[in-house]
Amino acid sequence: MEIAPSALTLAAELLGTAVFAASGASSAVGKRLDLFGVVVIGTLCALGGGAVRDILIDARPLVLTDWRYPLVAVVASLVVFRFHPALSRMRPTMLVLDAAGLALFTVVGTMKGLDHGFAVYAACIVGVLSGIGGGILRDVLVQEIPAVLREDFYAMAAAVGSVIVAVGARWESAIGHWTLMLIAIATIFVVRLVAIRYRWEAPKPKF
Amino acid sequence: MEIAPSALTLAAELLGTAVFAASGASSAVGKRLDLFGVVVIGTLCALGGGAVRDILIDARPLVLTDWRYPLVAVVASLVVFRFHPALSRMRPTMLVLDAAGLALFTVVGTMKGLDHGFAVYAACIVGVLSGIGGGILRDVLVQEIPAVLREDFYAMAAAVGSVIVAVGARWESAIGHWTLMLIAIATIFVVRLVAIRYRWEAPKPKF
Amino acid sequence: MEIAPSALTLAAELLGTAVFAASGASSAVGKRLDLFGVVVIGTLCALGGGAVRDILIDARPLVLTDWRYPLVAVVASLVVFRFHPALSRMRPTMLVLDAAGLALFTVVGTMKGLDHGFAVYAACIVGVLSGIGGGILRDVLVQEIPAVLREDFYAMAAAVGSVIVAVGARWESAIGHWTLMLIAIATIFVVRLVAIRYRWEAPKPKF
Repeated sequence: MEIAPSALTLAAELLGTAVFAASGASSAVGKRLDLFGVVVIGTLCALGGGAVRDILIDARPLVLTDWRYPLVAVVASLVVFRFHPALSRMRPTMLVLDAAGLALFTVVGTMKGLDHGFAVYAACIVGVLSGIGGGILRDVLVQEIPAVLREDFYAMAAAVGSVIVAVGARWESAIGHWTLMLIAIATIFVVRLVAIRYRWEAPKPKF
Repeated sequence: MEIAPSALTLAAELLGTAVFAASGASSAVGKRLDLFGVVVIGTLCALGGGAVRDILIDARPLVLTDWRYPLVAVVASLVVFRFHPALSRMRPTMLVLDAAGLALFTVVGTMKGLDHGFAVYAACIVGVLSGIGGGILRDVLVQEIPAVLREDFYAMAAAVGSVIVAVGARWESAIGHWTLMLIAIATIFVVRLVAIRYRWEAPKPKF
Repeated sequence: MEIAPSALTLAAELLGTAVFAASGASSAVGKRLDLFGVVVIGTLCALGGGAVRDILIDARPLVLTDWRYPLVAVVASLVVFRFHPALSRMRPTMLVLDAAGLALFTVVGTMKGLDHGFAVYAACIVGVLSGIGGGILRDVLVQEIPAVLREDFYAMAAAVGSVIVAVGARWESAIGHWTLMLIAIATIFVVRLVAIRYRWEAPKPKF
């Protein structure tokens, strides 16, 4: 069963794509890359997670089958290139949007994993990689240790929501498809924002 | 329809492979890597773009189905390892050959995308990634920000040629397969060389 | 023909997975990453080589079809996170285990390549990438030039064993499946350890 993306899902996914592109483009602007570099990094950041997901589950990469995804990614990158000083004053807004993108991509990725017949744990791996993959690509390309490895409760927030979707799917007919997705999306979003707000820290190794 | 590679296409592709291997091996020599490191980087640089292309379009990676590609890549890397001082005096020659490799790989990759039934815009993404993928791998492995993100009009030259092929393919029967490919290859090659010669620069973000 | 993993092969593969996870987690601890970073790097290092192998041969990634692999990888990473000072005193032991992991993954990867109908040389490429892929991912993520490019006789040891399997498979009925695998595994293991012990060095480029 392929999830037929309703107008709502589609709008949410495209928003997530735009936000991730903006986050990648902002990194590239910070590294003083030129126009092309900004667009390439923004696009890879927005579409990389989904491409890794689709390659793992052996589906045609969505970026190659629906032109709206790359278009939104390129446009968002161009907007950041042009208006970045204004955007950098919106950093709190960006963090909120990034948390929304993480939540959406992780939940949709987990669902896709289940739809392709993978076990619960495997769908979770696919979902988390969908959510965090783009940011890893971005940081590897601009030569930084990936933020997901340094920022507390980024991958962990994704993992929690992914488990909710994958386990909850067994009772999907009782819970309802949209209720389940909304619960999982809200959980990731809230965990991530609370972790930022209260500076939750994961334990460090003892030396 | 699979493109039956004529002797001409094959020779051109193998030349492109050799040139990309030489460019990767030169980077590795510059980082003082040993014999094995030079060969591994040279080979990945030459074959990585094509592997990414084939994984995206879900074809068997060419490097695993035709032994001539890895052979040429390894031999070219060994030649650079042995003769690199002489080669470094040939830097202008290398830039010209690299532009030729970029042109060939991009155009062949775009054609493959079309042959596998992808839309015009998707075939362009596949083509550009074929052209620039190897160089990105090379730079990530030797710990540099990928040249394609810093060098002006590298990815852009590829994109222009890719669009020519993908759009022109609609009138392929009128234009002729080889004429179309030659026009696109020549365009990428010339744009890239003119950009180097006249130091074209893409706009930088304003701060 | 799919290799039916006997209890022996499975145990050996899981040991390899644990060892590679431990090596990745140790790197992450050295970079002062937190709990999540250590687990993510450890898991990617343990499972990355196999995932690259399965994507290249177009099989479902093993990590998504057998939960024991990610479980072992996560547990091994957690153990390193908790007990790393004791483990760092075991460094010679770790090097021996890492050599065993390299040997096992390379040989199993080569066999899988042959089973999926690839030519001898292609199965060798798949096998070597299985053996070295996880370590490359680890080093790229923690921002170091991959050890495999700097350490002498790492990739080369894998290549030698891979060729033994792939060429020997033609006489597999005479030699026996297990004898062949054991010879190849032992060869990689011994070459790697002897290279470490006697500090074998590959030639460097002359300047």
